[in-house]
Amino acid sequence: MEVAIVTVGDELLAGRTTNTNASWLCERLHDRGVTVERVTTVPDRIPDIADAVTEYRDRYDAVLVTGGLGPTHDDVTMEAVAVALGRPMEPHDEALAWLEADGYSRADLTEGTTDLPAGARALHNDVGVAPGAAVEDVYVLPGVPAEMKGMFERVATAFSGPQTYEATVVADEPESALLDRLEAVRERFDVSVGSYPGSSVRLELSSIDATETERAAAWLRERVDGVENGDDDRA
Amino acid sequence: MEVAIVTVGDELLAGRTTNTNASWLCERLHDRGVTVERVTTVPDRIPDIADAVTEYRDRYDAVLVTGGLGPTHDDVTMEAVAVALGRPMEPHDEALAWLEADGYSRADLTEGTTDLPAGARALHNDVGVAPGAAVEDVYVLPGVPAEMKGMFERVATAFSGPQTYEATVVADEPESALLDRLEAVRERFDVSVGSYPGSSVRLELSSIDATETERAAAWLRERVDGVENGDDDRA
Repeated sequence: MEVAIVTVGDELLAGRTTNTNASWLCERLHDRGVTVERVTTVPDRIPDIADAVTEYRDRYDAVLVTGGLGPTHDDVTMEAVAVALGRPMEPHDEALAWLEADGYSRADLTEGTTDLPAGARALHNDVGVAPGAAVEDVYVLPGVPAEMKGMFERVATAFSGPQTYEATVVADEPESALLDRLEAVRERFDVSVGSYPGSSVRLELSSIDATETERAAAWLRERVDGVENGDDDRA
Repeated sequence: MEVAIVTVGDELLAGRTTNTNASWLCERLHDRGVTVERVTTVPDRIPDIADAVTEYRDRYDAVLVTGGLGPTHDDVTMEAVAVALGRPMEPHDEALAWLEADGYSRADLTEGTTDLPAGARALHNDVGVAPGAAVEDVYVLPGVPAEMKGMFERVATAFSGPQTYEATVVADEPESALLDRLEAVRERFDVSVGSYPGSSVRLELSSIDATETERAAAWLRERVDGVENGDDDRA
């Protein structure tokens, strides 16, 4: 399964906020065997959000959208998703009932709080007020991290793919010195290999076969100078 | 000036790495008056990188690309940019001369280390080996944060726009309770307003007129319950 993530917010594009929502979602999806093909940040503008959703629905199996839910003028994500799907916005009775059960009165709620694209499944917000939505292949989640995470867990089972098995080998050599062994390990084993230089070089092996991944990692560990070989250091 | 940032790397899409390069670049560009319209993360694949560069060159004034420079099989960014620009890759004499001056011998360097799209201006890497490139409206920077930051400073003056003046008001009220005053401040003053809820609500005002921004912020501060008004808290 291939998906795209659209993160909405001027504050991300101004560099005031680091996009930890995207890395959290990517990690959860990756752990479920899902390939994230794109993460794109767009401004709080309806045409920009709608264009990104439309483009990625076309290309991938699902689109997750986070941010821009709520009562203020810059919260336009739900309306943009409705535009992308060609559906009108309408009040969602179940979302209203949830909020009333949580102690909100209809009169207190900002107008439009429970409006969702027609036919959407409302997603309850355990932490905040604004509901999310699942509609066709689009999942709309809040931007506040605690709200986003809680809501994602409600839909997590919709995302799945083949389990992959990963191993990390940390090499204490310059990346350029490792080229022969990287080429050899890719020829000998049916694994994909990523190479991430920093103060040392983190080599990430993965395949859909646990044994193959482990054999490749063992082969590499014997052949590179490693300070922390076997340490699955993701810092 | 409107730009897009393309960050390249499977490790970002797998959630192993948080995209702090993007937030750093966004902040630096924003401080220079440049509007970042898109930040997109793509996998280490030539067609994906080339498509993103092509699409954003079409729409915006410049594209910054970071990540995927270096000697290993998954470092394909420079070639992808050459594809997007329809230019061949060729050895760059000045980049080679820099590396030789830094103590590398041509024989030690991995083949292709100093290959850049034909006609590119090479950007020296103060921290690592792989050179960057400026070619037409595309700027190609490394992914290792220290290398990326150093190289961006070499081209920073290419990015500019109107100075904007910002002020932050932190409100200790629910976002939904603030709607009347948010509407009023937007009507009274020529400012744009962003509203970012968390444990409190951060209201970000901005305009191209310092006095207007300050007047709007002062007006709001008198009218909202604020725990830390005036504190420019970007946490």
